[in-house]
Amino acid sequence: MGTTPLIALVTDFGTTDWYAACVKSVIWSVCPTARLLDLTHEIPPHDVLVGALTLSSVVPWLPQKTICVGVVDPGVGTNRAPIAASADGRFFVGPDNGLFSKVFDRAEHLTIVRLTQRRYWQSQVSSTFHGRDIFAPVAGHLARGRALHLFGSSVKTYRRLSWPSFQQTSTSVRGAVLHVDRFGNAITNIPEQLVARHPDGRVRCGPRKVRLVSTYGAGRVGELIAVIGSHGYLELALRERSAAARYRITRGDAVEFRW
Amino acid sequence: MGTTPLIALVTDFGTTDWYAACVKSVIWSVCPTARLLDLTHEIPPHDVLVGALTLSSVVPWLPQKTICVGVVDPGVGTNRAPIAASADGRFFVGPDNGLFSKVFDRAEHLTIVRLTQRRYWQSQVSSTFHGRDIFAPVAGHLARGRALHLFGSSVKTYRRLSWPSFQQTSTSVRGAVLHVDRFGNAITNIPEQLVARHPDGRVRCGPRKVRLVSTYGAGRVGELIAVIGSHGYLELALRERSAAARYRITRGDAVEFRW
Amino acid sequence: MGTTPLIALVTDFGTTDWYAACVKSVIWSVCPTARLLDLTHEIPPHDVLVGALTLSSVVPWLPQKTICVGVVDPGVGTNRAPIAASADGRFFVGPDNGLFSKVFDRAEHLTIVRLTQRRYWQSQVSSTFHGRDIFAPVAGHLARGRALHLFGSSVKTYRRLSWPSFQQTSTSVRGAVLHVDRFGNAITNIPEQLVARHPDGRVRCGPRKVRLVSTYGAGRVGELIAVIGSHGYLELALRERSAAARYRITRGDAVEFRW
Repeated sequence: MGTTPLIALVTDFGTTDWYAACVKSVIWSVCPTARLLDLTHEIPPHDVLVGALTLSSVVPWLPQKTICVGVVDPGVGTNRAPIAASADGRFFVGPDNGLFSKVFDRAEHLTIVRLTQRRYWQSQVSSTFHGRDIFAPVAGHLARGRALHLFGSSVKTYRRLSWPSFQQTSTSVRGAVLHVDRFGNAITNIPEQLVARHPDGRVRCGPRKVRLVSTYGAGRVGELIAVIGSHGYLELALRERSAAARYRITRGDAVEFRW
Repeated sequence: MGTTPLIALVTDFGTTDWYAACVKSVIWSVCPTARLLDLTHEIPPHDVLVGALTLSSVVPWLPQKTICVGVVDPGVGTNRAPIAASADGRFFVGPDNGLFSKVFDRAEHLTIVRLTQRRYWQSQVSSTFHGRDIFAPVAGHLARGRALHLFGSSVKTYRRLSWPSFQQTSTSVRGAVLHVDRFGNAITNIPEQLVARHPDGRVRCGPRKVRLVSTYGAGRVGELIAVIGSHGYLELALRERSAAARYRITRGDAVEFRW
Repeated sequence: MGTTPLIALVTDFGTTDWYAACVKSVIWSVCPTARLLDLTHEIPPHDVLVGALTLSSVVPWLPQKTICVGVVDPGVGTNRAPIAASADGRFFVGPDNGLFSKVFDRAEHLTIVRLTQRRYWQSQVSSTFHGRDIFAPVAGHLARGRALHLFGSSVKTYRRLSWPSFQQTSTSVRGAVLHVDRFGNAITNIPEQLVARHPDGRVRCGPRKVRLVSTYGAGRVGELIAVIGSHGYLELALRERSAAARYRITRGDAVEFRW
């Protein structure tokens, strides 16, 4: 009672143009009772990796049964497949281009269908805007309770992303900066579990030694620190300032954890 | 059942300040059951033309009965009229300054009233913020089911926008770039219907020949292409890149289609 | 009937990263019937003063019983207290760092509790993201009707902000620019009441005389004007242009009103 379907959106449409609004208009035309949640529309244009990192970070917090529409889709109109999936109780609708692959990789129960049933699409489908013409109406029909298998035929595999990997030895792990956030914190691909196992470990970013602390506020003024970020990865930060701006840290920079 | 009123918002307020939030607060004070849809708040300040293009692009996708509040209002507090209208089953509330004129031009059934009934406004009306003090409460009362004629007296005309026109001959149409979107796609004012009639036509942008293709992905790396955009106009694009940045295309640039 | 709880959010998370989305996901996990209202997520990082100005400007417009979650929290994970409060019929949840102090200062009825009851928090609390782990679930439980006193023990005082003050004499008041908004309007800390008492008063900003008018449109092209802004403070503006850009006005600049 009182719990209406929840549809979450992650796109690279920005909020300046009307593209995200068109997607939401179509969703509400199909399913007016849905609640809509903007995860973000500010994925850098065509940047599937940042889209995947975003989904990987936020999906664990989404309520069960949430329907997640992801549109970072440089291949729109080409032969990349449109898919819908259920993964551990949540649903996903978008292109099969790796955007959902971090979520799918972790899923214990995963079902994917390739979208083929045009009765659930807009009657006219443009070749430039599948977010509006395919993914939005499919999400709306999912929200109205249509079963996943009605939208197309089951597929066994999905496109995986080439996620920046880290090298691990018996005494160290060498990773990289994946993303710089609004605060100038630099999020790496070194997972929390590795760091937690070695509380006395030492962090380096290029030539700089970085102190590992438990909270931003533990940093001294101007001191580059490392914390376990809320997303579950090692993160470089500067108390109340932008670490990325101060120390010129950008995506791809090497970060090492040694114990 | 289950379908609560939908109020859509397009403004130049941005999302950094609290102006859009004030408008929504007032709407929800009047009609707490309304659903709110941000079309965009990022219209460039005072840019009625981009506001009109946005409305023209998104309104066809809005569900019937949607109430559209538009506030791009450089003349706030002067003698430009506040209006509400119904156009082909949707409602519009805002200043009579051309913002809605592309939508009104196309409407088969159009009723406009000049807002005069102060009982539906905030008790105190500032001279700088009619979005909050007039348009928001009027939209809220419309959402609660008040009939349009209660808000003021009917008017027959509305302010038209000086929309950039195109010149057409028997073998060509000469238009201009209206807007550059987040992806760097340059949207022109050459309508889809003209282009579709001549599938072998040739596109030029300044000195450059542009290939007309059916989807972004059909472009070669670095090749300026033209597609029919999802908004129904000819659009210049670059596969996975910003055409506007690469070729220095800006609003107002001439674009020609010749057959 | 039909009025579901309303939770309003003001943060410095931006909308590019997933932090605001995580907060909303947790709120909807606890209270799926809540309506969510983004006041803004674009407070400059760690800028508690702008957060306080925003809340002070928008809170009077929020419906009664609104639950306001504020997260501008440079001290997250340190010993600053997490609080919840009720002030004149609305609720507030966030850090006790001055963010709510302009609202609390004005309240006739104010109750504050320090959040200590961990049963209303996430089972695991990170040291970097109390917005998600403490404030969001507390707001959700408040929305479900839990009484304020259940969340912790009552406290009598709160952190006040060092709000830029103005100097008043018998013939003048000397204040400063608090904030430049999206339109380039410069909002000062000189309150409406002082200005309204002296309609023939004269405004100066540095060496410039500024004409006091009643609406933006009353300004001549290129003329710096002063109006009473919709937030209740004296504001410097330029008709259809950015006063701040044209006259290089920035936060902290002195503004004088003399009668």
